[in-house]
Parts: sequence; structure tokens; C-alpha cells
Amino acid sequence: MIVDIHTHIVPESFPAYAGSGSGDRWPSMGCCDQAHHQAVMIGGKNFREVSHHCWDTSQRLIDMAAEQVDHQVLSPMPELLSYWFDDADALRMCQHMNQTIAEMVNSAPDHFSGLGMVPMQDPELAAKEMARLKKDYSLAGIEVGTNINGKPIGDPFFEPVFAAAVEHDLAIFVHALHPAGLDRIVGPPMMAAFVAFPNENAFAAASMLSGGMLTRYPDLRMAFSHGGGGFGLVLPRMMYGWKAMGKALFEESPLTMARRLFYDTLTYDTPALQYLIDLFGMEQLMIGTDYPFIIREKEPGKRLQELELSDKELARLQSDNALRFLGQDS
Amino acid sequence: MIVDIHTHIVPESFPAYAGSGSGDRWPSMGCCDQAHHQAVMIGGKNFREVSHHCWDTSQRLIDMAAEQVDHQVLSPMPELLSYWFDDADALRMCQHMNQTIAEMVNSAPDHFSGLGMVPMQDPELAAKEMARLKKDYSLAGIEVGTNINGKPIGDPFFEPVFAAAVEHDLAIFVHALHPAGLDRIVGPPMMAAFVAFPNENAFAAASMLSGGMLTRYPDLRMAFSHGGGGFGLVLPRMMYGWKAMGKALFEESPLTMARRLFYDTLTYDTPALQYLIDLFGMEQLMIGTDYPFIIREKEPGKRLQELELSDKELARLQSDNALRFLGQDS
Repeated sequence: MIVDIHTHIVPESFPAYAGSGSGDRWPSMGCCDQAHHQAVMIGGKNFREVSHHCWDTSQRLIDMAAEQVDHQVLSPMPELLSYWFDDADALRMCQHMNQTIAEMVNSAPDHFSGLGMVPMQDPELAAKEMARLKKDYSLAGIEVGTNINGKPIGDPFFEPVFAAAVEHDLAIFVHALHPAGLDRIVGPPMMAAFVAFPNENAFAAASMLSGGMLTRYPDLRMAFSHGGGGFGLVLPRMMYGWKAMGKALFEESPLTMARRLFYDTLTYDTPALQYLIDLFGMEQLMIGTDYPFIIREKEPGKRLQELELSDKELARLQSDNALRFLGQDS
Repeated sequence: MIVDIHTHIVPESFPAYAGSGSGDRWPSMGCCDQAHHQAVMIGGKNFREVSHHCWDTSQRLIDMAAEQVDHQVLSPMPELLSYWFDDADALRMCQHMNQTIAEMVNSAPDHFSGLGMVPMQDPELAAKEMARLKKDYSLAGIEVGTNINGKPIGDPFFEPVFAAAVEHDLAIFVHALHPAGLDRIVGPPMMAAFVAFPNENAFAAASMLSGGMLTRYPDLRMAFSHGGGGFGLVLPRMMYGWKAMGKALFEESPLTMARRLFYDTLTYDTPALQYLIDLFGMEQLMIGTDYPFIIREKEPGKRLQELELSDKELARLQSDNALRFLGQDS
């Protein structure tokens, strides 16, 4: 069984803006020349042209069968997390997205699980909304950005969200968003996606350690996309600092904390994946592909075949760890 | 024989400011309570308290003997690169630093080589100064920041410097400086050094690939400190992008370009070092320690003993690659 914990969705349509405040960047759909395609318009600009693979579960099931994926975890296309809204608009968008994901999951509950979204820009409100996610939408957790309007996810400002995740038994999937350091990129525009995003993941994962949240909430089930980006090479430096400076720096060993986090296997490279497995542990890696977007990994089971794994280890990476992350392992 | 290509110096004193322009941040030395210590004052603030290990070559030779290091490559404490100066002040500081390093090297030329500094904020002026480095100072090359006042080192703006390095057979050592993403750090202030610096290295190394400079100057001898920081986990993603998009993204394979760069071994971790050797190649890694600063690696030969290396491979990592980087291999 293969569970893909990193796939995105876009709703087929967005409701018309009904608020009175922060709607300048309320998403809508524009037309495309290509059949089955639509353009997600944000702030009057074409953010991205997407295909029906984003909302059509029948199409997804066909693709999954072709690529030997049994179960997809659905989460919002990250830009739709829309952290720029005021509370009322944010709640409206969250509820539209959560409802959309819930319906997609319900169309084939054996093959889909869902991670919704909450208004992280107001952590108390987000925590309140999290209380409803299981009951009202049957969602397994939430997707969040690596930063929320520039504030890294590990900032204790977000503590109400972490407390709510533990209380309501919800998973948190962290995805790179609006990365730091865009002024340090040269070359074609796509370079930001290839360089700033993995660095952004490293900033975010490190912030979960240094902000103390993984010590206060050791049972938090949190996963980082793209194998945590560059984090796997930043962690040894944090370890070295901790060995030199001890509790002045961290309450606990950074490695101990890092091994509480989950990471997807989306490293695009077998030696890199092996390095992460050795570093983070065989229990913390899960298949993730970025389906259905361009920089995605196809047939994710194949890369694992390139590693020397026992059947039990393979089962962990293919599904057991993912089910544990989702809280579906019992 | 062990060559340490990553050690820093601070002059015992700075000349009084003699310019008329940008001297607000002209460094000076302040007193310290501790014997043999001085405080480097920049802009009226204590930037860092440093010890005589920074300028006293007799002391360095004692430490080197104790740690089995035969040869140190001396480069400026990065903050002293002083990219905030106008041309006249910058040249004056560069010449003071280059003269200081030249004298330290001349005190024991078998045990020291030097990397100086040039006014990168004016690449044409920097290139002109580079023409003097070998003749007037017997320096092997220069140290540069990962960015110069926010512009990443791979920006074609710096092309005159790369052309001059090839023309005058000079090595370039890139060191993290004023990193991007400080707003993405939470926790104790030291966290910036542990997280933002390795990410900054990744931005800089990636910029050398995506800015095209390694394609235009394939013979450039350039090294990155700290094993390139997180770059080793960013590169597979760049490779994946290149495989998907080809020449729209890069003229050449990112891996081919990355394997033209040198990296020091300062990963603080044996598996991380092994990963980098496998990725960048046995010919591109060189010992670096950050001597004499706090987050340095002691007895750098020891970590290499933990790898399974033939004598020939060990010699490459301990000295051969460094001598090739320095242009001292013939």
C-alpha cells in the first residue's frame, strides 16, 4: 500500500467575494484556452493555470492507479492558504476549502484523506476552527505555510494552534510559502522555486526546534514537505552548537526534536533520501509527490526500490509512517 | 600533510581613519579585561572580542602543531570585508588587510598561505586590485562574502572579478556574510549563526550556477565555506528542474557546475561529510575549520579517519585538493 501525503487540490470554483474588508486578493477562476484548465486569479493576476486533476477525483483515481498510489492526502494549493485576509474573509475561504476537500474525500474515502486550512494569522481563531475539522469535515489535520505573513511557523505566537492540534488529534503539514531570500536569487524566475523554497523549509523546521514548540508539544504530529529542504544539512550545525552551548541554546538535543518531526520523501534524489532516512530515522519519512503540479515526482514507489530496505522498512516508508502521522494507525 | 583552508585573521590594530567619506564603520580596537584579547569595534559597537590567536603567528603555529595542521590558509574575519565603504576607504582597508596577511604569511611561508580582500562593491576596481595580489602581497587569492550588500555573489555584476581571478590565477573563497532571512529565525540570537548562515551559503552557491558564471568561467577556482551549507540538499532539486526544463533553466547540468566548485569539510558531522563527498566528488572537498573562532572544528584530521578512505583519497581531502584550489599543486 502506498500513501502519498503531499498532493494538492484547487476547488473547481470559488464563491463570489461576499465580505466587506480584505477581498482584493479573493481568488477566482479565469478562462483558459486549454480544455479542462482554469486560471487561478489572485489580485487580478493569473497566479497559476491548473488542470482538472486539481479537483476531479475520478481523474485522480485514474492517475493513482497508473502510478501505484493507493491513497492520496489532499491539501490546498499553498497560495490558497490566503493569510492576507481579515478574520471574516479568512474563515469564509477556509470553510470553502475545507468543504471542498471534505467532499473530495467523501467521494472515495478509502483513497483520500484530507488536510484543511485554518486562519493562522489569528491563532486563537485558528484553534477554534480546528475543533470543528474532524467532526464537521472528517479532516485529518491542516496544511500550514512555513511562515505566516513573514512570521516563521515555530514562533510561539502560533502556540494555540499546536495546543489545538494535540487536543483534537490533528496532523499539521508544513509547506513552503512566500520564501525568504528572494533577493538572493539570480537567473530565471523559476530559480526561486528551486532554491528559495528548500531554504525556506530549513528556516521553518529549524524554527520549530529553536522556538521551543517541539519541547512543549512533544506529541505534535507535524510533517515538512520536500524532505525538509536543506534542513538535513543545517541540523548538524545546530547539533554542534547545542553540544558546545547546551541549554543556553535548546532545552533538548536538536536531533531528538528533529526526529519527532515527519518529512516527505520529495528529495528528487536517492542518495539525498538515504541521507535523510539515516538522519531523521526510518520512522519519520513518508511518500510525498506534489501531485498534480509540474515539479512532482511520478511513480513514487520506484525511488524506494532503489534503497536497500527490508519489507518492514519499505512498509514504513510507503504507508505505516503516513498512517501514524495522520492518526489513522490504530 | 594537512592544509586547513578556512582560518581567519584580525590585524592587531587598524590605522586611524584617514578618509573623508564613509568612515562611520571604520574598525578600531577597544580594550578588553582579558589578557591578549581585544574588541573589534565597528560603528561604535563591540562587534566581537577576539584573542591574539587572530594575529599572532607564533601562537597559531603552536596550535597547529597540537592539532596536526601543517598549513593554514589565512583570510579576513568576514565582517572586516567592509563592503559598506566608498572606493577610497575600501581600498585603504583592503590594503591594510592584505598587507597584514602578507606579513603573517611571510613569517612562516611553509605554514601559511593568504587570501586577501578586494572592494567587491566596485567590481572593476576589485579586478584592478586583484592584478597586484600575487606580485605585491604573495597572496593566493581572495575571500568574498556570499553577498555584497545584498547582491548574491553569482550575480553577473561581479563578472570582472571572476575574469580577473582566472586571468591572474587567483582562488576565491566564499564565506557567509550578512545572511538573508534573519526575520525567519526564532529563539536565541545565536540561532542566526546556526541556521541563516548555512542557508545563505546555499543561496550563494546556487547563484553561481544560475547566474551562468561557472559556465562562462569553467576554470574559476572557487570554494564555499561550511561545505556549502544546505546547498547539498538544494542541488538535487535544481537537477530535477534542469532535467525537466533543460536549457531554459541552465546551459549545463547543475551537478556538472557544482562539481567545479570546492567546498570545505566544515559540516560538523561525518555522515553529512560523506554525503557531500559522494555528491560533489572526492576531488572537491578540503579541510576547513574556522580557526580560531568559537564554532570551529578541532583536530580536523580526526573526522576524516571516520570515513573509509584509501591513502590516496585521504591525501586528496587533507591537502591535494587544497593545493589545487590554491594553485600550488604544480
